[in-house]
Amino acid sequence: MFSKETYISRREKLKKQFQSGILLFLGNDECGCNYEDNTYFYRQDSSFLYYFGISKPNLAAIIDIDENKEYIFGDEATIDLIVWTGSQPSIQELADRVGVKYTAGLSRLTEKLRKADKEQIHYLPPYRAEHILKLNHLLRYSKEEISAKFSKKFIEAIANQRNIKSEEEIVEIEKAVTVTSEMHKRAMNFALPGMTEAQVAAVVHETALAAGGNLSFPIIATINGQFLHNHYHGNTIKEGQLFLLDAGYETPLGYAGDMSSTFPVSEKFTERQKEIYQITLEAHNNAIKMAKPNVNFKDVHLHVCETIFDGLKALGFTKGNTQEAVANGAHALFFPCGTGHLMGLDVHDMENLGEVIVGYNNVPKSSQFGLKSLRLGRPLEPGFVITIEPGIYFIPELIDHWRANKINADFINFDKVDKYRDFGGIRNEEDLLITKTGNRILGKPLAKTIEDVEAERKVAFRK
Amino acid sequence: MFSKETYISRREKLKKQFQSGILLFLGNDECGCNYEDNTYFYRQDSSFLYYFGISKPNLAAIIDIDENKEYIFGDEATIDLIVWTGSQPSIQELADRVGVKYTAGLSRLTEKLRKADKEQIHYLPPYRAEHILKLNHLLRYSKEEISAKFSKKFIEAIANQRNIKSEEEIVEIEKAVTVTSEMHKRAMNFALPGMTEAQVAAVVHETALAAGGNLSFPIIATINGQFLHNHYHGNTIKEGQLFLLDAGYETPLGYAGDMSSTFPVSEKFTERQKEIYQITLEAHNNAIKMAKPNVNFKDVHLHVCETIFDGLKALGFTKGNTQEAVANGAHALFFPCGTGHLMGLDVHDMENLGEVIVGYNNVPKSSQFGLKSLRLGRPLEPGFVITIEPGIYFIPELIDHWRANKINADFINFDKVDKYRDFGGIRNEEDLLITKTGNRILGKPLAKTIEDVEAERKVAFRK
Repeated sequence: MFSKETYISRREKLKKQFQSGILLFLGNDECGCNYEDNTYFYRQDSSFLYYFGISKPNLAAIIDIDENKEYIFGDEATIDLIVWTGSQPSIQELADRVGVKYTAGLSRLTEKLRKADKEQIHYLPPYRAEHILKLNHLLRYSKEEISAKFSKKFIEAIANQRNIKSEEEIVEIEKAVTVTSEMHKRAMNFALPGMTEAQVAAVVHETALAAGGNLSFPIIATINGQFLHNHYHGNTIKEGQLFLLDAGYETPLGYAGDMSSTFPVSEKFTERQKEIYQITLEAHNNAIKMAKPNVNFKDVHLHVCETIFDGLKALGFTKGNTQEAVANGAHALFFPCGTGHLMGLDVHDMENLGEVIVGYNNVPKSSQFGLKSLRLGRPLEPGFVITIEPGIYFIPELIDHWRANKINADFINFDKVDKYRDFGGIRNEEDLLITKTGNRILGKPLAKTIEDVEAERKVAFRK
Repeated sequence: MFSKETYISRREKLKKQFQSGILLFLGNDECGCNYEDNTYFYRQDSSFLYYFGISKPNLAAIIDIDENKEYIFGDEATIDLIVWTGSQPSIQELADRVGVKYTAGLSRLTEKLRKADKEQIHYLPPYRAEHILKLNHLLRYSKEEISAKFSKKFIEAIANQRNIKSEEEIVEIEKAVTVTSEMHKRAMNFALPGMTEAQVAAVVHETALAAGGNLSFPIIATINGQFLHNHYHGNTIKEGQLFLLDAGYETPLGYAGDMSSTFPVSEKFTERQKEIYQITLEAHNNAIKMAKPNVNFKDVHLHVCETIFDGLKALGFTKGNTQEAVANGAHALFFPCGTGHLMGLDVHDMENLGEVIVGYNNVPKSSQFGLKSLRLGRPLEPGFVITIEPGIYFIPELIDHWRANKINADFINFDKVDKYRDFGGIRNEEDLLITKTGNRILGKPLAKTIEDVEAERKVAFRK
């Protein structure tokens, strides 16, 4: 936990955005896996953490703007519970640590909200079923009303504040990125042909847990890096394949790191792997050069798309005018996702609050395939923490779909592409702080050139 | 997945228990951690797994007794999704693998159930908030009605069937227990003074993941073993302390192992640790001797309580008549929990279906402190898989509470007990199959005598 002054000043800043009403923060509860008491690891809601700092289930908090009072609501542990868990600080003790004066049991929250003017209660959109049940209970809204009546003003105020990281947050994020980098180095120094993906994922996971925190998101550790949401770890890895790892650490305070690396299962890359790898690396380095205040991240992304398209053109995969091709989304056959996203207390920071407000500052998003998956499309500001993660993917299902439907056929040499349908995918990812004049790469550097990656791989083969 | 015949015959057996109505099985969905798409690891509902075998979110199934038809409901993957996840088998392909003939989209489930007589729809009690929302949508019951109207007949039929493990289930559980045993051995061979609890927990977790499955429950890895629900891993472990590990493996098919071990952080136990350890071990071995068909597990538990009380009496912690003391629950100062529980697809098998039906065959449970935490109190039957896990715990908060309130003061020498308030806790745990004539300990044996544990510890100190 940060000092109580941090939380007090964060709430002060938030309060100034409101003339009246009640700001409601629902803390997260435990979440049962296959029965109620067999719980997943506990994770507090990030906005609750940001303003109230306490990572503990069964809490809620409000800021009553009219009364100018802040409350934390929670029920005290019974002696029966203490026998099972050990002594617990009281709700008031917890509140004191974050500078909140008023506390009460959860039933008082219900009373208070039911007495208030519902239209004046600002709440955030639910992302867990439990939130819907709670809001239904507290506000007597139907599920449909809950989805319609959340507070855009509240989201905007939070997003504007959380998007700019303070110095102590940056220190914390840098810790997260440093452990994240160690997780990737561990994998590069460990993976050998004949292992399963699960064995590699397991040492990466172990590195995060041993550091005292957790994963910031489920590990992607795969020889099928072309599938972007792939959490299957059942394959045996073989000579000649590419291994894509996307994994990050979350510190005990809840701040995330997020990196990706791609390395050969063999000791060295093949020539055809090197050619594609070099294009993603160039796109990656170009993006880092461009990322600075006032530059719209959408332009960084479009430049990455052009670099990828150009690089692939030089190898014969694509053809035609690059700007035109990118405007038509032709690059998205190989790069159907975005160049990066915001990162902080969430690995995709504030994704629960809605991409258009948080990542686009209310400017509508493109609906074009590829561009619609870009999570960040606003001018960068000092204090933003973002990821840079261009990639090139050969997705057999997408290749077949485009070819069959003649999508962007003027820009793609499908015969050439088809020869790479078993290639897999490549992505490197680093985390950047936007500074006043440019950016700074956070954390301990991770091997990303071909030479550096092969040097790390040598360690695994020499063991 | 087992063969389709397994699932067909399981459903056939279940159907015979019903003359009419619809049996509803809700599959589990993904569960968001800090935003919707940052999900916890996926876990299918165990009854869904038992009868329908498919581990995949967003499914439901019904057995319509009147029509004598079985259906699996789910929506097909879109091309957009396939780009991100790779090709997915169709719902019909999945259904074929488990011998189910009829499939349809999820909207058809809603239509079908809304046309049916609600009172004839058998459903299970919800244990996730998502279940409540689904049942509310499908059956138009309020939250209160959902809690009141679940089907006890359905629970009984499932419990009677799932309680008796088949040969192929026992093979699977034995795999789980064998990896579980390796997880414990790994910790004993690894932990050294100066490490954090998290570092030890991390290698235990890694062992589970590397085997291709997952944990069957959150790891307890602690120098404060006296707190039974303790998932904090932040302490540094020191010479002279006891380390308690309670951890288990879940196979990819979903079957659980569950073992506990207690070892010194130092290379050897101290004399006072040995004295207490020896009592739990005697209780443990007595319980294993007693566990056989037709013996009520409650009697096994009471015998364990007596062994513990007697052992502690010989050391001067307790006094008075043992039977009388146990009848009054005096042992529960040191052993406030149960001797064991059922295990299968859930580590506490079918805990979501309710302890009184599953573990007590509808005989009401005791409300006495200690005995009320015994999860299993019915005559054992061949095919039951259970855990045996007596322990001795010195819980400072409980000691103070009993002393202040003179609870069982005739049976406790509080002055002596108070000298052990920093002792910690000891528990060993193994998994047993009840056979026709007695029992068989499952999986690879784990060190449990003082000599064997010290031999494993030597490995850590020789590294």
